[in-house]
Amino acid sequence: MYDSVKGFRDFYPEEMGSRRWAMDTIEDTAQRYGFREIGTPALEPTEMYTDKSGEEIVEELYSFEDKGGREVALTPELTPTVARMMVAKQQELQKPIKWVSTRPFWRYEQVQQGRFREFYQTNVDIFGSSEPDADAEILAVAVDMLDDLGLDNDDFEIRVSHRDILSGLLESFDADVDTREAIRAVDKRAKVDRDEYLDALYEAGLSYDDAEAFDDLLETGEDDLDTLADRSETVADATENLRAVLAAADDFGVRDQLTLSLSTARGLDYYTGVVFECFDATGEVSRSVFGGGRYDDLIEGFGGQPTPAVGFAPGHATLQLLCERAGVWPEEALETDYYVLQVGDTRSTAARIARDLREQGHVVETDIADRSFGAQMGYADNVNAETVVIVGERDLEDDEITLKEMDDGEQVAVPVDEFPGDRDRPTFEDFAE
Amino acid sequence: MYDSVKGFRDFYPEEMGSRRWAMDTIEDTAQRYGFREIGTPALEPTEMYTDKSGEEIVEELYSFEDKGGREVALTPELTPTVARMMVAKQQELQKPIKWVSTRPFWRYEQVQQGRFREFYQTNVDIFGSSEPDADAEILAVAVDMLDDLGLDNDDFEIRVSHRDILSGLLESFDADVDTREAIRAVDKRAKVDRDEYLDALYEAGLSYDDAEAFDDLLETGEDDLDTLADRSETVADATENLRAVLAAADDFGVRDQLTLSLSTARGLDYYTGVVFECFDATGEVSRSVFGGGRYDDLIEGFGGQPTPAVGFAPGHATLQLLCERAGVWPEEALETDYYVLQVGDTRSTAARIARDLREQGHVVETDIADRSFGAQMGYADNVNAETVVIVGERDLEDDEITLKEMDDGEQVAVPVDEFPGDRDRPTFEDFAE
Repeated sequence: MYDSVKGFRDFYPEEMGSRRWAMDTIEDTAQRYGFREIGTPALEPTEMYTDKSGEEIVEELYSFEDKGGREVALTPELTPTVARMMVAKQQELQKPIKWVSTRPFWRYEQVQQGRFREFYQTNVDIFGSSEPDADAEILAVAVDMLDDLGLDNDDFEIRVSHRDILSGLLESFDADVDTREAIRAVDKRAKVDRDEYLDALYEAGLSYDDAEAFDDLLETGEDDLDTLADRSETVADATENLRAVLAAADDFGVRDQLTLSLSTARGLDYYTGVVFECFDATGEVSRSVFGGGRYDDLIEGFGGQPTPAVGFAPGHATLQLLCERAGVWPEEALETDYYVLQVGDTRSTAARIARDLREQGHVVETDIADRSFGAQMGYADNVNAETVVIVGERDLEDDEITLKEMDDGEQVAVPVDEFPGDRDRPTFEDFAE
Repeated sequence: MYDSVKGFRDFYPEEMGSRRWAMDTIEDTAQRYGFREIGTPALEPTEMYTDKSGEEIVEELYSFEDKGGREVALTPELTPTVARMMVAKQQELQKPIKWVSTRPFWRYEQVQQGRFREFYQTNVDIFGSSEPDADAEILAVAVDMLDDLGLDNDDFEIRVSHRDILSGLLESFDADVDTREAIRAVDKRAKVDRDEYLDALYEAGLSYDDAEAFDDLLETGEDDLDTLADRSETVADATENLRAVLAAADDFGVRDQLTLSLSTARGLDYYTGVVFECFDATGEVSRSVFGGGRYDDLIEGFGGQPTPAVGFAPGHATLQLLCERAGVWPEEALETDYYVLQVGDTRSTAARIARDLREQGHVVETDIADRSFGAQMGYADNVNAETVVIVGERDLEDDEITLKEMDDGEQVAVPVDEFPGDRDRPTFEDFAE
């Protein structure tokens, strides 16, 4: 007996059914906005990652030399691949480009609750528009996905911030600040105690007094946002951009679901404008459900032409945690519309009925293992068949079959020639007196 | 600029749309038969493959040592994984087990037309039934998939054979025959010249006279099948089993699409009963489109409990070749229901209309890049928008918008408050006089 590889999961049908529902639901949301599905490879040249992130990234990669001597890696994220694809067709692709895809990615990291080495994400990105409307459309898709999953507005909170407000504020202090370092400290603000946080800002170059002052500025609410503008031109431009994004989000009908939160920083270095993170409103799911934002320099960094970009990538493990907490995750159970049960030599009639029902689009099983009546009933129950169509030799002598509802056990005899007939979904009710 | 890894493909939206249609179509067919989707990992322990197939299989694997010192391989096929999953839950899983999944697999082999190192398959399998009805259900699903893809019965031919008829016939000669070797020779029969074929049978242990006699027997048609039975008990049992499978296929409504063809052998060693291959009826697609059959020993061979099994795994590359040849492959083009075009400052109205149309389930794009009228029209044309909804400042002063049909250029003014209204898919026709 073999074990699966650590951090890699098997999904049996019950769990897979719920996951498929979630994947289909959020892909459908994106597709209604005109995001187009792409298909991408599992392997890329390792240098695609090391050129940009340095050799140390290899520690987090599943990388190896293939039989032809190529250094390759299992893709840890989608962006470098997408950059490569855009370079390959840069003459043909008309902008803005709106792409969506759901697939696994792989990272060699610590396995913990909700974090695996093989993990599934739906990537949603717009390339080629630097307009606030593009940022706002990404926010609108995010909100609509959650809505389509059955979540209410008070189930989640989307916290919106802007990288250039953070970096502009940091640069407005009379100090030599490492803004990347400081923004990483802000990203960890809620996870560490206050002293550690202030120490980190100090390490990044702020005095302790400035660190306190900077932190006070992060508490600025939406109404006072304009008071920040006089700190610097960078901050003024960024607040104007953020306001424009929020105004577009208002037109797009999702403004109420967004909360200004300057202390939302996103840990990753590559963001350049609006950033956001989605949280469980109850805090029960303690980590960020997903996040995203604008990353105007990244495509060029991966060898593409300068291309403004904004996007997000919900991970299906954390999305599931939020849905479960909110009680909207579907029951992990099989669904079967009909089980056609054979008693005696009734296969040809049973097969005809199964075929007719399948042609109507129903999920229909029948006996393919020569089982007894009881064993077939047990199987039908196991796959949660809603209706069992009993095709028995003796019934057929009277040109009848029996419909049995599995939830209440009620049953009715039905003329075999009238079933299923042209009813869309014939059940007990259609034939009971 | 980076190159993709040799044998790995990118799918841009146009091509991906057609591929998604094909994947969804055949998965839907299987699901109506009660096959349940599973999700499986991309990596497995390398020994899962080498224990069964020997160290030489490593040459065909993308295998490597991970950061934790585990020998792992990108999965080249699904069966070992499925065997592992069945062992892990053998107490809970009620048989028959019917599983389906579509995903990429990876093999380091020669890249050629229709063959890649990353390739997509839909695996469809029944575990736990040795009854002919299970074989027949697999054949029925295969035929219905082709039917659902829009193929006619005369577009393809499914050739059915039986491993035990071949091996029984071989053993009935007074010679020490390596049946595996001989069956591999039969599998290559159509691809090599006759001398080479007879040489291969001779190498496997048949005299040249016996090889000719054996080959004559392979030409046995369906009406004469019973004449083979007196060659041996094995052959008698196998012909009876094959007849039972064909009789069940008749009840399942797919008998006419099956052709008896004893020279259909399937190259793989692990088949144990009925085998089949699907071919392009015109021969234009020269290789087998897909194949399958019964493999009752394989699950046990991979460490599972003895479990009868039957299945098939259409590869999406060859399936596409057949669909293209038959003219049923969908046009590789984007589809968009509406483009909502903004002229002047009309975003809030345009957004309201886009939102309403999306809520009706339509694919709707609007301007997110502050483009001119002409650029927006060009984009709408590029994404094949069927209808453009022009929301212009001046029109709005008269409380009107304009609907433009993109195929014929006709347009009509519509009161903004009446659009989209409660029509399912409002177009020019609904408003034209």
